[in-house]
Amino acid sequence: MKEKLDVVIIAFGGNALIKQGQLGTAREQFDNLETPLSQIAKLSKTNKIVITHGNAPQVGNLLLQQESSMQFPKMPLEILVAMTQGQVGFMIEKTLDNELMKKGVDDPLISTVLTYVQVAKNDPAFKNPTKPIGPSYTEKQKGFMKTAKGWRRAVASPTPLKIIEWREIKKLLDHGFIVIACGGGGIPVTSRRKRYEGIEAVIDKDLASAKLGEQINADKLIIATEVEKVALNFQTENEVLLDTLTIAEAEKYIAQGQFPQGSMLPKVQAAINFVKSGKEKAIITSIDKIEDAFYGKTGTSIIQ
Amino acid sequence: MKEKLDVVIIAFGGNALIKQGQLGTAREQFDNLETPLSQIAKLSKTNKIVITHGNAPQVGNLLLQQESSMQFPKMPLEILVAMTQGQVGFMIEKTLDNELMKKGVDDPLISTVLTYVQVAKNDPAFKNPTKPIGPSYTEKQKGFMKTAKGWRRAVASPTPLKIIEWREIKKLLDHGFIVIACGGGGIPVTSRRKRYEGIEAVIDKDLASAKLGEQINADKLIIATEVEKVALNFQTENEVLLDTLTIAEAEKYIAQGQFPQGSMLPKVQAAINFVKSGKEKAIITSIDKIEDAFYGKTGTSIIQ
Repeated sequence: MKEKLDVVIIAFGGNALIKQGQLGTAREQFDNLETPLSQIAKLSKTNKIVITHGNAPQVGNLLLQQESSMQFPKMPLEILVAMTQGQVGFMIEKTLDNELMKKGVDDPLISTVLTYVQVAKNDPAFKNPTKPIGPSYTEKQKGFMKTAKGWRRAVASPTPLKIIEWREIKKLLDHGFIVIACGGGGIPVTSRRKRYEGIEAVIDKDLASAKLGEQINADKLIIATEVEKVALNFQTENEVLLDTLTIAEAEKYIAQGQFPQGSMLPKVQAAINFVKSGKEKAIITSIDKIEDAFYGKTGTSIIQ
Repeated sequence: MKEKLDVVIIAFGGNALIKQGQLGTAREQFDNLETPLSQIAKLSKTNKIVITHGNAPQVGNLLLQQESSMQFPKMPLEILVAMTQGQVGFMIEKTLDNELMKKGVDDPLISTVLTYVQVAKNDPAFKNPTKPIGPSYTEKQKGFMKTAKGWRRAVASPTPLKIIEWREIKKLLDHGFIVIACGGGGIPVTSRRKRYEGIEAVIDKDLASAKLGEQINADKLIIATEVEKVALNFQTENEVLLDTLTIAEAEKYIAQGQFPQGSMLPKVQAAINFVKSGKEKAIITSIDKIEDAFYGKTGTSIIQ
């Protein structure tokens, strides 16, 4: 046993809750969470865990629900993000409670913390929306972008500068809590003249997770997504699956355009940011392989 | 200066965010929060503060938005409650951040904690829904109840047995955080064979706040609502405003039917529960008079 437990941040992709082809009922989302959270329940015995998560399908559904209901005032995007932090946070926390209780932990210590993340008002992302959210369509609509899955609504995805709530996340970890935070990449706020203001954006949850890792001095970052390993020449005849990637290699492949924007690119970039801040390693793997990847049996490790 | 700071729980009614006649835009809700949170910012210098809040208009809007949108799966009520914890928690936290920064606190310590609350599956409330939520209508509809404001959707309001997250709330208070918790009375869950399950209900936020007060050993409970003082013979010629109420008096007036169900009754009952658990006092007052009521200048004090 190590004396000091490692702090591990595990970032859940949207498919942790809604698989391709699913409508996203509450039951489906709870069921999909069982496999990854059962693995995390095991890892939590010997590590301090922070779980972060995406919210693209959930916030997209909320946006479209709002548009189809004329009766009530629309909430701005940052408030919809706050809503999905409650929604997804509860689904993760309750499922993890149950997985831990199954494993004999009587009264699990888990805390979901509302998180906002500071971005710059003049971030160039606001002029060039690149983040797809919500369901996909076969036809283009205003403000939409083309993705591998079809046409989807696009919003700005500015760079996370600071996770405002890093202090309570660290305190709760110190006291033995598993913490769920940075939902949907965090509620985007700008800070000006000692005032926070919400802003229309969705922050990439992997970049936010890497930033949080710097702030709370985490040891490992695991980015859980749809694929087991990062690939070169993705979905071509020459596809190559990678076991490890140095920062230099990763940066070279990014320059070659190997990783699609709004998909694998921010994951690899987040892994680079995390390792560059002096950490051991980041791992990219699939949502159901978190435990194996943690023990080095699969996944792509990004190292110095 | 006292050596040990008092723990004060302040429960915000729905009108803290949406005033009568307002649609409930995000701007209105943020504006309405400024007065009470400016007062709480002052109180937080010499007290440890927990803010709890209702969610009736917010959760009602969500329910009706869901019904007007056929495209996406409906979320069960407990998940809608979780969503409003994110929504309202963010509005309170951000506004309080700004009020504290105005007063010279550079980097405020505030944490919004997702909270669920255990209820009994066989609580008699499930057979007799008494909690009005959402907007009011002039005509009765299925599952609706008559209130002072018209016909409103009615859901079960079971008794809160345990605030699951009381431990992190206490830890965060100990570390100097202002904590926002128990939003909408908490996400209702039942516990059976070491599993939590969400359940269709809305827990009264004042009763949940009183229960939290017992669990974290709070000193004072302030219930902030639409009226400055509790009244006997409310809105009649013989109306009498009360400065203090002993538990014995309060119980006598409840037996006389002085306080309407789903409105003043649960507030007085929550105040009784809190004081009976060995606490100093509970205060019922209006949302804009929190500071004056704290210092004994107005409000109705419920005492032993």
